[in-house]
Amino acid sequence: MNRHLLSTADLSRDDAVLILDTAEHLSQVADRSIKKLPTLRGRTVVNLFYEDSTRTRISFEAAAKRLSADVINFSAKGSSVSKGESLKDTALTLQAMGADAVVVRHGASGAPHRLATWVDGSVVNAGDGTHEHPTQALLDAFTMRRRLGDLDGRRVTIVGDILHSRVARSNVHLLHTLGAEVTVVAPPTLLPVAMGDWPCEVSYDFDAVLSKSDAVMMLRVQHERMNASFFPSAREYSRRYGLDPARLARMPEGAIVMHPGPMNRGMEIAAEVADCARSTIVEQVTNGVTVRMAVLYLLLSGSESAIGGPQ
Amino acid sequence: MNRHLLSTADLSRDDAVLILDTAEHLSQVADRSIKKLPTLRGRTVVNLFYEDSTRTRISFEAAAKRLSADVINFSAKGSSVSKGESLKDTALTLQAMGADAVVVRHGASGAPHRLATWVDGSVVNAGDGTHEHPTQALLDAFTMRRRLGDLDGRRVTIVGDILHSRVARSNVHLLHTLGAEVTVVAPPTLLPVAMGDWPCEVSYDFDAVLSKSDAVMMLRVQHERMNASFFPSAREYSRRYGLDPARLARMPEGAIVMHPGPMNRGMEIAAEVADCARSTIVEQVTNGVTVRMAVLYLLLSGSESAIGGPQ
Amino acid sequence: MNRHLLSTADLSRDDAVLILDTAEHLSQVADRSIKKLPTLRGRTVVNLFYEDSTRTRISFEAAAKRLSADVINFSAKGSSVSKGESLKDTALTLQAMGADAVVVRHGASGAPHRLATWVDGSVVNAGDGTHEHPTQALLDAFTMRRRLGDLDGRRVTIVGDILHSRVARSNVHLLHTLGAEVTVVAPPTLLPVAMGDWPCEVSYDFDAVLSKSDAVMMLRVQHERMNASFFPSAREYSRRYGLDPARLARMPEGAIVMHPGPMNRGMEIAAEVADCARSTIVEQVTNGVTVRMAVLYLLLSGSESAIGGPQ
Repeated sequence: MNRHLLSTADLSRDDAVLILDTAEHLSQVADRSIKKLPTLRGRTVVNLFYEDSTRTRISFEAAAKRLSADVINFSAKGSSVSKGESLKDTALTLQAMGADAVVVRHGASGAPHRLATWVDGSVVNAGDGTHEHPTQALLDAFTMRRRLGDLDGRRVTIVGDILHSRVARSNVHLLHTLGAEVTVVAPPTLLPVAMGDWPCEVSYDFDAVLSKSDAVMMLRVQHERMNASFFPSAREYSRRYGLDPARLARMPEGAIVMHPGPMNRGMEIAAEVADCARSTIVEQVTNGVTVRMAVLYLLLSGSESAIGGPQ
Repeated sequence: MNRHLLSTADLSRDDAVLILDTAEHLSQVADRSIKKLPTLRGRTVVNLFYEDSTRTRISFEAAAKRLSADVINFSAKGSSVSKGESLKDTALTLQAMGADAVVVRHGASGAPHRLATWVDGSVVNAGDGTHEHPTQALLDAFTMRRRLGDLDGRRVTIVGDILHSRVARSNVHLLHTLGAEVTVVAPPTLLPVAMGDWPCEVSYDFDAVLSKSDAVMMLRVQHERMNASFFPSAREYSRRYGLDPARLARMPEGAIVMHPGPMNRGMEIAAEVADCARSTIVEQVTNGVTVRMAVLYLLLSGSESAIGGPQ
Repeated sequence: MNRHLLSTADLSRDDAVLILDTAEHLSQVADRSIKKLPTLRGRTVVNLFYEDSTRTRISFEAAAKRLSADVINFSAKGSSVSKGESLKDTALTLQAMGADAVVVRHGASGAPHRLATWVDGSVVNAGDGTHEHPTQALLDAFTMRRRLGDLDGRRVTIVGDILHSRVARSNVHLLHTLGAEVTVVAPPTLLPVAMGDWPCEVSYDFDAVLSKSDAVMMLRVQHERMNASFFPSAREYSRRYGLDPARLARMPEGAIVMHPGPMNRGMEIAAEVADCARSTIVEQVTNGVTVRMAVLYLLLSGSESAIGGPQ
């Protein structure tokens, strides 16, 4: 069986819980000032990034290094890729060089799945087009579980550009698998035309769902889409879909505010909301390293309890 | 004595065999699941790349890390080089920072030789202009030796843009040193005007030499040269000098197909030929890491059996 | 107490001497062929560079790796910074990922100070605008101390573009703290309008101070400023403020020549002067790694003897 993490839609509840529990365990080890584990010594993790994403790359790099793996960064810009090398040949090359895991960020949805059919090592999807970003969803679930306890029956609201968001898609599937009830909120033009395979509710009215949410996850606004004719103006968007102090005040006691970063302060989220005690935004970053450690550990440490995948 | 690897033309048969034998030994260690050796702990290898070459840089980086060396990547773009710093001052700076080896890729033929005159540490030529790329030739020889046995008397054909190819030049010299008989095949416009110092045969007729070759090495076509008036069209080139299934079928039993990568599938090599059982293309990549480990090990491990060089 | 190295103006004499003495100790360890110390194993150093500076980045990277820290390079180009992320959010992200130290190079004077107010870890200023570059001054002082002995009463002359030079400013403050007498020499247009807080003498006459200098530090000329109307021509600059063999001959016996690099040979310094026995330019690079090891060691190793800082 191949051992990959390609999407949360394919992840069983048992596998997802295993990842979260492993992350919890690793986090407790780190709290005991054991900053580096020898688990993956001699293993090589390649960060294969076809799109810039310093945050995600650094998070995976830190995770791999804390497990004592060697990390090689491969930015596709200025590489043989720009000489027209195919994804397949790049994949075979990295495998031949001894990559035990390839962490791939790619602009094309499905690229990590194709990669996984070509290599014997593990493939971790670090974001593919508008499709999935599974480790983001896992770190979000980990963060919610720590703040809210068991996710079963919890109500999570995801607000923003659902149409283009791999973060939203990965979260909707994973949260559904973990028993949460998800509502996505967006202007109609930023929702997929057909949402039949999205296991969630849809709403256009942020204020209506706000008061019933245990967690509100704000998505980053892509500025480049803001001037398109089908899109509300920035001011209009912020007014209708931004999380400001007034809306924060109407959230239930104990409800949390999330954002995958980087934020547009003052656009989808007010600065004081981002920095308030209910905000988990900084925790999410910390948890990202921990969850990615768990994923690399489970995929590479030779344990029999592999993470399932579609291949 | 300085300890460098600058060109295969300067490499004695004994030194070449020592590198190949060391690589064989390291390869067997790796097969016993010993993925990381402590040999070069505390040594620093700097990858000094004036030209982009992600493949070669990653291969050296993986090799150095498997020997536990620290690796520092120095891309000349956006560095003090772009502020006009000379190669000599860059070299002295890297040495002063404690670089034990500098792996250098440079657009100017001879740059690694000049570098070697300025530093006390080791210099490894990772490709200089149209001159040499010695580790590529060594990994090719290692691959041939594994597939074909002793290279003495073996017939190797190299096909493509000989004029601009440091891979071809390094291979011709090394293979000659190792006792092989080399023929280069190219359109007349892609051959050097004077080949007096090339210890090989020259042919314009691929099909004539094909059936007598133990190994056929296809060189990458540089697209940017394809529209030049002195060059055959892409279709014409592919028809006359490309390795397609029909030509593959006329190769002797046991003969192998090689390519240094990255390939233009469908141009100099057909996709099904690249992926066939006779193709060593993926092995070459794997062997590249092993051979580079051997080179770094011999140059840096303090053994008395140094690799010779002209300085 | 926060533990940062932000400027030499804030550095007490005791702290400065502690850094220099620690560097001396680390240097002696290195001389005994102990190339790597386990001191910072499991600690993460992030190089956060908003401006290209391969030299400085590599020097910090080598220093951190010799102390067995993990190093993550974050070039702000093509990162979420280019998506408009604020310095504060970047800082909080790096801290949340577990950065124990952030080494920051930034085009805006004061950026490292702001960073230091946001993070719990250590911040090291690797150059901010025209303000400070404290590790450069520390390595310069270390180099002078090795060549000249105690700096108390030593006469140091700094020549060049004082107005824009963070190297000059950091050196003036540190050298003053260490008891040296500093004179800056520059054309009037390349001096700050008000120098009231600079503890040094000012001169427009290089030759007058030359013969009384124990050390002469030449600053790099910024070519892009050479054509400005307020600036002398390149030839005129070189004639009046360049260090050529004739001027070298008029320096006192035992006086040394320094330059932070990269040099414009033939402009502010003649090639034969740069390479002469009195030149410490290559030593400065070596000492840079040692001094940065000392800084990281003191900031991160958990010793009680922390380097002081303004926060």
